[in-house]
Amino acid sequence: MSQTVDELPSWNEGSAKQAIVDFVRRSSSEGSAGFIPERDRVAAFDNDGTLWVEQPMPPQAPFLLNKLVAMVRSDPSLAERDPFKSIVSKDPEFLGGVARQEPWAIELFLRGIGEAWEGVSPEDYDAEVRDFVESYRDDKFEKRCTELVYQPMLELFDLLRAHGWRVFVCSGGGRDFMRVIAEDTWGIMRENVIGSAPEWTYRDGALVRENAMRGELALGPGKPSHLFARTGRLPRFAAGNGDVDIEMLNVAEFSLVIVHDDPDREHAYTAGAEQILTVGPERGWTMVSMQNDWTTTFIQGATP
Amino acid sequence: MSQTVDELPSWNEGSAKQAIVDFVRRSSSEGSAGFIPERDRVAAFDNDGTLWVEQPMPPQAPFLLNKLVAMVRSDPSLAERDPFKSIVSKDPEFLGGVARQEPWAIELFLRGIGEAWEGVSPEDYDAEVRDFVESYRDDKFEKRCTELVYQPMLELFDLLRAHGWRVFVCSGGGRDFMRVIAEDTWGIMRENVIGSAPEWTYRDGALVRENAMRGELALGPGKPSHLFARTGRLPRFAAGNGDVDIEMLNVAEFSLVIVHDDPDREHAYTAGAEQILTVGPERGWTMVSMQNDWTTTFIQGATP
Repeated sequence: MSQTVDELPSWNEGSAKQAIVDFVRRSSSEGSAGFIPERDRVAAFDNDGTLWVEQPMPPQAPFLLNKLVAMVRSDPSLAERDPFKSIVSKDPEFLGGVARQEPWAIELFLRGIGEAWEGVSPEDYDAEVRDFVESYRDDKFEKRCTELVYQPMLELFDLLRAHGWRVFVCSGGGRDFMRVIAEDTWGIMRENVIGSAPEWTYRDGALVRENAMRGELALGPGKPSHLFARTGRLPRFAAGNGDVDIEMLNVAEFSLVIVHDDPDREHAYTAGAEQILTVGPERGWTMVSMQNDWTTTFIQGATP
Repeated sequence: MSQTVDELPSWNEGSAKQAIVDFVRRSSSEGSAGFIPERDRVAAFDNDGTLWVEQPMPPQAPFLLNKLVAMVRSDPSLAERDPFKSIVSKDPEFLGGVARQEPWAIELFLRGIGEAWEGVSPEDYDAEVRDFVESYRDDKFEKRCTELVYQPMLELFDLLRAHGWRVFVCSGGGRDFMRVIAEDTWGIMRENVIGSAPEWTYRDGALVRENAMRGELALGPGKPSHLFARTGRLPRFAAGNGDVDIEMLNVAEFSLVIVHDDPDREHAYTAGAEQILTVGPERGWTMVSMQNDWTTTFIQGATP
């Protein structure tokens, strides 16, 4: 491979980088065996653990937990029922379930989330997210969540876009939460952010958030279905890191798995990824070692 | 206005064309009073009656009706219940209600539609739409629905895109139906097509269409809410022609109303547009006379 410009400067030379660059180049080379018509060049990325740090919890979790704790402070009677009860008592089973995106825990959590922002406007919701992102610091690195975005993945976005791909994020996390940081942090427009979401109703000239979430979560089989609903196709390139990404990676032609094996520069863990770490290599997916394949981990330059 | 190139060649000089061109130019001129940050340049267009002929019925209606009639042919017992009963008896109240996109008629129709494609794959659904588009001819013009797309509106798409706008279609009609023709006919990617839609579930490695439609219809207040869900913002430019577009035009900064007043080159009617034809001028919306503002009506060149 001769390159005049290194398109993935934060990636070490090796089989993962090679596989990515080869696939992406072939995808836009008319006549090549791996050519993909431009309209079909849809790439989908998970967020938590694929684009930014998800340990000990995805950044959205403290945002949500803080809100629910504040609700209990205003109305102590809420502490008598779940999910408020489990949250204020710091029930480890519940909190662990949320961290691992286990359906039962997410389901319970969602009930509280529905109540928390019922009737709010998009502007007020966005402002709450912005305040959180501004003030919250990660325990291990003492950084903002937007500073814990993986630089190598941003370079991958650029590489894909340079070859005519449209890049989407499809995460089990809250669509509206991610949209607040998507444009400045990822360079991805709000409309390309797909995720679990409540309903917003247009009433009396304004949008208000509903308690109910009619659609399914963008987890597991919910990822391909959300992607299809939003884009009208399934992704040809997909990247994830957890078991809840397996279905999304199954439908893609090129599938990338981020392996968290770097205890110093990030975290080393397999929780929530037990299956994908087994089926990935079996299915020929490109396994990316954060320790060996990346020269650097976090986003470079000033905080957006 | 001095123009070296006429960006809207199928539009007659006049106040409508002038208003559009002025607004769009200002939107991308940094420092101008009407400047709009690029990320906010979201334009939304209704489809039936705004991008193509909707008389005597939106083209999707015969596609759906033919399907439901075929179902009754296979299973005559269906004729005992609605909507099959109203369809095979050609009940004028029901058919008129569908043509005018009246909620009660659409609701009833949807029940049959849900049954009709339950369990189908995206590929099979697309193929049925393609077959219909290929074979169906409009009564008045004896043309395909894709030949009855308004040339002036395609030029407007180009003008907007040349000024950094992202163009979305947001129609009460079926999202998945429109997506089949969107790319070749409008030059709009599938992911920028928003509309009423059933659920698709990922099961056993494939997507299947569900009977249920959990979300609301993209009609009336459903237009701003669908647009917000899909794009994370509300449109700054919006175009429509019917009363079900009023809410979408209300939220935009520049609102365009297509007035069907050309009995020879298209149709002359006010049905389903009684309110918008009154509130449009009151609210300073740009009213487009198909007869006076357009030099030509239908898409030029070969059928895509």
